[in-house]
Amino acid sequence: RLTGFFQADIAWFGQDENNRRTLGNGNLVNGDLQDGADFRRARLAAVGDAWDNVSYMLEMDFAFPGRPSFMDVWLDIDDVVGKNNLRIGQFRQPFGMDGQTGVKDLTFLERALPFAFSPFRQIGAMGYGNSDDQLRTWAASVYRFPTGPYGGNVGDNGGYGISARTTALLIDNGDQHGLFHLGGGYSFIDPANDAVQYRSQPEIFISESGGAVLPLVPAEVLPFVDTGPVAVDHVNLFNFELAASRGPLHAQSEIVYAAVQQRGNPSVSLPGAYVQAGYVLTGESRSYNRQNGVFGRVNPKCSVGKQGGIGAWEIATRWSYLDLTDANVLGGRLNDVTLGLNWYLNPRTKFQWNYIHAMLDNPIYGDSEADVYAMRAQVDF
Amino acid sequence: RLTGFFQADIAWFGQDENNRRTLGNGNLVNGDLQDGADFRRARLAAVGDAWDNVSYMLEMDFAFPGRPSFMDVWLDIDDVVGKNNLRIGQFRQPFGMDGQTGVKDLTFLERALPFAFSPFRQIGAMGYGNSDDQLRTWAASVYRFPTGPYGGNVGDNGGYGISARTTALLIDNGDQHGLFHLGGGYSFIDPANDAVQYRSQPEIFISESGGAVLPLVPAEVLPFVDTGPVAVDHVNLFNFELAASRGPLHAQSEIVYAAVQQRGNPSVSLPGAYVQAGYVLTGESRSYNRQNGVFGRVNPKCSVGKQGGIGAWEIATRWSYLDLTDANVLGGRLNDVTLGLNWYLNPRTKFQWNYIHAMLDNPIYGDSEADVYAMRAQVDF
Amino acid sequence: RLTGFFQADIAWFGQDENNRRTLGNGNLVNGDLQDGADFRRARLAAVGDAWDNVSYMLEMDFAFPGRPSFMDVWLDIDDVVGKNNLRIGQFRQPFGMDGQTGVKDLTFLERALPFAFSPFRQIGAMGYGNSDDQLRTWAASVYRFPTGPYGGNVGDNGGYGISARTTALLIDNGDQHGLFHLGGGYSFIDPANDAVQYRSQPEIFISESGGAVLPLVPAEVLPFVDTGPVAVDHVNLFNFELAASRGPLHAQSEIVYAAVQQRGNPSVSLPGAYVQAGYVLTGESRSYNRQNGVFGRVNPKCSVGKQGGIGAWEIATRWSYLDLTDANVLGGRLNDVTLGLNWYLNPRTKFQWNYIHAMLDNPIYGDSEADVYAMRAQVDF
Repeated sequence: RLTGFFQADIAWFGQDENNRRTLGNGNLVNGDLQDGADFRRARLAAVGDAWDNVSYMLEMDFAFPGRPSFMDVWLDIDDVVGKNNLRIGQFRQPFGMDGQTGVKDLTFLERALPFAFSPFRQIGAMGYGNSDDQLRTWAASVYRFPTGPYGGNVGDNGGYGISARTTALLIDNGDQHGLFHLGGGYSFIDPANDAVQYRSQPEIFISESGGAVLPLVPAEVLPFVDTGPVAVDHVNLFNFELAASRGPLHAQSEIVYAAVQQRGNPSVSLPGAYVQAGYVLTGESRSYNRQNGVFGRVNPKCSVGKQGGIGAWEIATRWSYLDLTDANVLGGRLNDVTLGLNWYLNPRTKFQWNYIHAMLDNPIYGDSEADVYAMRAQVDF
Repeated sequence: RLTGFFQADIAWFGQDENNRRTLGNGNLVNGDLQDGADFRRARLAAVGDAWDNVSYMLEMDFAFPGRPSFMDVWLDIDDVVGKNNLRIGQFRQPFGMDGQTGVKDLTFLERALPFAFSPFRQIGAMGYGNSDDQLRTWAASVYRFPTGPYGGNVGDNGGYGISARTTALLIDNGDQHGLFHLGGGYSFIDPANDAVQYRSQPEIFISESGGAVLPLVPAEVLPFVDTGPVAVDHVNLFNFELAASRGPLHAQSEIVYAAVQQRGNPSVSLPGAYVQAGYVLTGESRSYNRQNGVFGRVNPKCSVGKQGGIGAWEIATRWSYLDLTDANVLGGRLNDVTLGLNWYLNPRTKFQWNYIHAMLDNPIYGDSEADVYAMRAQVDF
Repeated sequence: RLTGFFQADIAWFGQDENNRRTLGNGNLVNGDLQDGADFRRARLAAVGDAWDNVSYMLEMDFAFPGRPSFMDVWLDIDDVVGKNNLRIGQFRQPFGMDGQTGVKDLTFLERALPFAFSPFRQIGAMGYGNSDDQLRTWAASVYRFPTGPYGGNVGDNGGYGISARTTALLIDNGDQHGLFHLGGGYSFIDPANDAVQYRSQPEIFISESGGAVLPLVPAEVLPFVDTGPVAVDHVNLFNFELAASRGPLHAQSEIVYAAVQQRGNPSVSLPGAYVQAGYVLTGESRSYNRQNGVFGRVNPKCSVGKQGGIGAWEIATRWSYLDLTDANVLGGRLNDVTLGLNWYLNPRTKFQWNYIHAMLDNPIYGDSEADVYAMRAQVDF
């Protein structure tokens, strides 16, 4: 079965002078973010069952820099140990609620800043399952790290990681009448070639390749915070997640903490966190996926079209934080505040508007600010 | 729903000595076009309805230099204002009849030379519709320009375009008994980074990448005319189209005119034109698409295969012209005369033969000529 | 119709010091093969009928270096001359049993070493058919050579090849009760730009691109034998194949011989050969494809899953040989011995384990050895 989706984005940027200087490392032109439009994601996937206990997914993204890049490419074998399943291939490693939330179902255009630490898609094997009452989920995986855009990793010197995540619904009165979710995750990563790099754009990404006749300006949104390559023995990642919903309101928050064991330098501690909330003006509740322990999408009660509805309208806000500065690591600290408006025309089409205010503290250039105005059109099938 | 097609081409070239000198900019070896075979286009697309009033297309071309390149990637919302639809994403901007004709339905291997001016696929938004009697169509769009192979464009300094096209059927006795079509288009383009480049191959394109052990010769058909990058404030494009059909005969002609407002140089005027006609020997008429105001394909009355037919056979000829020389812009003038033979085995499979005689007037190297013999096999699904 | 498959591999390498020195051309670090995991192949294809006598395939591989690379992209017209079919596009040229065997159905992770000589996928045209009793098959083709990853080839100076293959079943008591297969192939190749290069990894391939923060080590398995570019007038390739099966046992063997007519150097003779056998412990027989004259896959009698079976288990072994050293051509000689274990969970999912012992004789650095331990998970749909 063929499935897929795309996201067409447009964005405008405003930066103070010190922000341009910071991003351009002293050069105002090199740090001048350009307005633009592009496809953030464009994916085709084959998904289905190969046998009564074996399912598969083969998904490619044509908009990512790999052009195309490997996304979910895995086979699942059901009920390998009890009711627990085994997944082999490339998939999203179990760590964090934001990372496990489907990218088609995000409340904002991008995941929150602490996502920079997430191992996310790597090639490996995972066991996962949930309790019979679907109040608890668990998953644990082992993988090669870091996996490149085509799903490969090589290296004798390290190159392995493990991840685990577990969640519990402490209150479950159904999607509409109240949920309270608690979760935690852990990863140990010994990267190939003994180096890691953490960085993040300010929760927006627009890029272009090869279009303009004369390429004079930055072709993509530059990272606001960036550790550069850091020589490490290994990294320990910790994650704690909290979420709740009731009626048209939903909220979630996570804290992520990276304990980076440097080679030849002291260990550093890099924290991140976010809090977000959404309120559906038209009264719908956001769905919750009990198999995976994450929120799903907002489905309008009355879609635009022959049903004659106005779809679902949602307002949302988020604060997120990422600190990549500690000891000799001078990656910078970033705070983002986002306001969002989402229009769900029908269960498979939505428009999104985000205003993002980014407050950067760079250890060399000091404080600076930027504003982003962005829109997205998304359809999935 | 999965759809797609491919075109497998083979071509042989003959050039006079001055043509090799011109294309090689004085070097006979560098300008020696190589015989070859390749896939001109190979596309897979997902197309369908996301909702009762929302349709989508996500099409990738695996043979274009982007490998793969974004083609039609859009979502359509029906009846947004009256019977007019809204399209968002990347799509063919409304300008010119040749550009709007589906590439699977072209009478010759390539579109005519003036297509070099067409904005064609860009990322943007378009409103379009037609009159209830389907005698008139209209479309208007706004977009980022120029959009790269992955559907993106960035740039604060310009980077926008608008296009509009309208058509009318002055005579409509049905596809078989006589049609007379009139149309016009306009575009205003303020390109990102204030530069444009117009160029064209002689209506044939064969290329190779990475195959040969020793790459000694031009890997692709070089442009015969090429302005190089031209610094501009903006460009105005005008287009006028005329078409008719009756029984097995169909004909169409267009004039395109680019008024290029240079930066620091006088404005230049670059014209192009073509006239083409086809005659289906087996008596079928070429279909006409009343929603879009373009010709469709020739469907054989009796296909090869179990129907025991010989398919449809068509002969065709075209003259086309492109003048990229004016004032300080020294792109050259090209006249092409083409003879074509098409064999439609069934509605979804065809073979095509083209003989192209290209007459080039280069402002530095003077007059030269080249001959192209080419074949295509095409299947769509 | 959408079809496809993927193969996720993991491998560990052991090399003696001289093997690292040989592969690194004197540098032990550059020749140190890295353990790793990747997707060896990941393919999506559209396949079906365009008309009652026309079928097509449009297949892309997203894991190959072309990313994506053209695989089978052809249209078939049935019964063009008698019961013989015509194929146009890119396809596997008819030469050798190993090359004609579907990559999903291979007994080992990779084809045997002599496959290095095979023209394999090229853009061209082929006539093929079989006798009414399906005891004999034949195929002959003409093509451009060498075709690049995107299905193209250009070049006035040569660039053509022809291939032919014929097979016969001398004994045919059905797939389970005994088959004896004989076959032969021939190719004449006049490559574009008058050069060929033959090389081979030791029947394993793992690679990575762009993943690691610091790229310090070989990103892929290096060729053990490699002629480098050889200037040639043309090449004659000869192939002889022998295969048999009875009950759970199947075996096949091929000899390939390349007669390379060098330019400005004497002709050289480069031979290759392999013998392999497999035994299905659970008693199934390997299927044989009578249209194409190759072995198919092992289908378990009782699959894992709701049928409650253990699938099919197979053990296999292979010796293969490739000699790329003769006169001034110093490519090296390689002997590989492989032990394999295959677990077919169901007809569309399998796991494979290979141990490969590679014995290299390099004309500069002398004898060296390497061991490979590799696993694969494969699903097709």
